Amino acid sequence: MDRERFEQQVNFIREIDKEKNIFRQTHLTGHGRNENDAEHAWHMAIMAYLLREYANRGIDVAKTMMMILIHDIVEIDAGDTYAYDEEAKKTQEERERRAAERLFGMLPEDQGEELKALFREFESGETAESRFAHAMDNFQPVILNDANEGSDWVEHGVHVGQVKKRNEITPTGSTEIWSYMEEILKKNLEKGALLP
Amino acid sequence: MDRERFEQQVNFIREIDKEKNIFRQTHLTGHGRNENDAEHAWHMAIMAYLLREYANRGIDVAKTMMMILIHDIVEIDAGDTYAYDEEAKKTQEERERRAAERLFGMLPEDQGEELKALFREFESGETAESRFAHAMDNFQPVILNDANEGSDWVEHGVHVGQVKKRNEITPTGSTEIWSYMEEILKKNLEKGALLP
Repeated sequence: MDRERFEQQVNFIREIDKEKNIFRQTHLTGHGRNENDAEHAWHMAIMAYLLREYANRGIDVAKTMMMILIHDIVEIDAGDTYAYDEEAKKTQEERERRAAERLFGMLPEDQGEELKALFREFESGETAESRFAHAMDNFQPVILNDANEGSDWVEHGVHVGQVKKRNEITPTGSTEIWSYMEEILKKNLEKGALLP
Repeated sequence: MDRERFEQQVNFIREIDKEKNIFRQTHLTGHGRNENDAEHAWHMAIMAYLLREYANRGIDVAKTMMMILIHDIVEIDAGDTYAYDEEAKKTQEERERRAAERLFGMLPEDQGEELKALFREFESGETAESRFAHAMDNFQPVILNDANEGSDWVEHGVHVGQVKKRNEITPTGSTEIWSYMEEILKKNLEKGALLP
């Protein structure tokens, strides 16, 4: 064992414990508390494994799961940016780029570069894996929110057009899952949880 | 899309949201709140990916990660059994077996059988993947607890012999990681956080 390498890995592992304190706008089912980033990523990774048959193109499921597990680590430094907060979204990219440098830079160089590349690939949304990961990132809160009668949308006065804009990437990952999501949005629009 | 199959998958995904409300005895770093099972599994899966080079035998990392991600789902029905609660441990196996039947049984049959087999493989601790998964399951709380000056051990009056007994499987997954853990235990014994 290269002790210096191992301690860099352990220091990174200890540091990312902080992701459990980054809370999202989404609430747990049963009208529970706000969800944190680590739980969200855990949920998405299992979803990716179970729903991979609906990906538009064949995906490397291990790569997709790891991409998902690490995609929000930057929020330890950059904070959570709510999907419909247009002001915060202006500075999001730069904040998250710096966070990726510091956090993944704690790892041994080979692993740090690997995780930075995986994060950049997720952000770019250009590969089959990153598109499916984004589909999971968007579908997961919709499942929770729908289970809570759309209460997160109601709280923030969200318009269906905003949800659709955010989901532009979703059908590039899975047209089948997007069709199902459209039904959920329609139902929530009809009952008034989403604004027209 | 086979709609019935998809809805079984979504129902399972919605159901496992409850794992985020199963709290462990371990506390987050910075003397934070108790950790929940979903966060714990997220942390372990990233650890398995980053530390796989220390596994005694080559492991299928995707399989190990999925095994880790699902290994505590049974606690939604069976509850968390504290590692050093000898009374609760007597009924743990039967409680968890029934929980696996109900929870994984929500999935389409092929996926339900796959996840039950993966859970049984984890429990058996006989394969390289399950041994490394157990090493992660044991190393992860030690990292957090050591970062908190051993406060979880102090709170429960844990003896070093109990930790070593629980960790019998750890060196079968990774002798290198177990050596490092032994140093942490020795340090905590010397400063009195662990009882002799």
